[in-house]
Amino acid sequence: MDLDNRLQALEARVRLLEDQLAIYQVMAAYGPAADAGATDQAVALWTEDGIYDLHARAMVGHDEIARELEGEWHQGLIGRGSAHIVSMPKVEISGETAVATCHSRLYRREGDGYRVISCSANRWEFARGAQGWRVTRRVSRQLDGSAESHAVLTGSMVAGKP
Amino acid sequence: MDLDNRLQALEARVRLLEDQLAIYQVMAAYGPAADAGATDQAVALWTEDGIYDLHARAMVGHDEIARELEGEWHQGLIGRGSAHIVSMPKVEISGETAVATCHSRLYRREGDGYRVISCSANRWEFARGAQGWRVTRRVSRQLDGSAESHAVLTGSMVAGKP
Amino acid sequence: MDLDNRLQALEARVRLLEDQLAIYQVMAAYGPAADAGATDQAVALWTEDGIYDLHARAMVGHDEIARELEGEWHQGLIGRGSAHIVSMPKVEISGETAVATCHSRLYRREGDGYRVISCSANRWEFARGAQGWRVTRRVSRQLDGSAESHAVLTGSMVAGKP
Repeated sequence: MDLDNRLQALEARVRLLEDQLAIYQVMAAYGPAADAGATDQAVALWTEDGIYDLHARAMVGHDEIARELEGEWHQGLIGRGSAHIVSMPKVEISGETAVATCHSRLYRREGDGYRVISCSANRWEFARGAQGWRVTRRVSRQLDGSAESHAVLTGSMVAGKP
Repeated sequence: MDLDNRLQALEARVRLLEDQLAIYQVMAAYGPAADAGATDQAVALWTEDGIYDLHARAMVGHDEIARELEGEWHQGLIGRGSAHIVSMPKVEISGETAVATCHSRLYRREGDGYRVISCSANRWEFARGAQGWRVTRRVSRQLDGSAESHAVLTGSMVAGKP
Repeated sequence: MDLDNRLQALEARVRLLEDQLAIYQVMAAYGPAADAGATDQAVALWTEDGIYDLHARAMVGHDEIARELEGEWHQGLIGRGSAHIVSMPKVEISGETAVATCHSRLYRREGDGYRVISCSANRWEFARGAQGWRVTRRVSRQLDGSAESHAVLTGSMVAGKP
């Protein structure tokens, strides 16, 4: 293989690594923003018409997601002390789109410690655009033994868009 | 350094980055598969004769690991709602083998929340083969103050193979 | 663009990926070292005069951090069974320095399970030197609803150095 071809192959490999780390960065940015009440930063992780399908209630677009984060439940949570944490995800990239599968947990301050009030199966879908990788759809389902929560983890829920 | 040498050096560096991310991917795939009851996917992360040494009970090969995941304990766990989560690991790659050190936790649904029923020291050993990086041995020890659990975390347990 | 320029651009991109993964590695090394009582390994993650500002008590330099890890509280913790875990961080690299933002948790063995006794906002600052990336300052604040804990997560605490 000549130098030009080798270089081109390497550029493609580096691009793929950059994509995977960029997706990690987007996912790692959600919790700090959500727990600090930085609604604009949290919402900006989604595309304009991105979906956050949280326990079967689908919020569509920045305004609806922002309303949730500015709402009584979320504000009460962060006022008391909370941590929204996603686990290291399994990422599958296909050109300009990607899917990440992982767990998320929500810890809330109670007494002198923290209680895990939520533990969910997560599927994040991404698209690459002018502003880099952003979330087009995030689906979370409580891990309660349901077939749906398991389908989120295996990826077989893809077709079942809300 | 001429172009060919620079390109070769860069190829080696990119390979190492790919290795580290590939190992992250294998580790991130275990929890979703285990918690969804996707036994085949979980088991396929190990080599054919790979070992899962879980709290001093060593399962050897795909069949023994699958038997555990299809058994009463694990099925009861996922039927109720569980999350097997590994933390971001420290990875050391040496050519065709690698070692990752991290923590793992097991959350189980209880009442309207989740309880952390297990929290372990983890050592994962990997080999690269025709199917990419796979687990040759995973050792987990409950973090209960034991010297053995600490040895798993420092890597001094290497010689003490079961 | 000629080959030399393309190669140079690619070298810079690879360097940035290496930096991000190197920072992951430093952060992933803390918990295993701290929970195993490997004080030297834990302390070596910081620069000689690095700061660990833990819940408003700032330890400065290797000796002070080591004293904390060798002290009664920490030794009691690891003797009973503990897990210090950081979440996958958001990393921002600027040449020879970097900042990572994430959550950390501390699990302690209690009865037949584990309790989350601490859940914190984290800001880690790094510098690259002869020994690679090391921590120059780590700030942790309990997530208890305080403005300070939120400022750690948004990065607005930068100026408020202790």
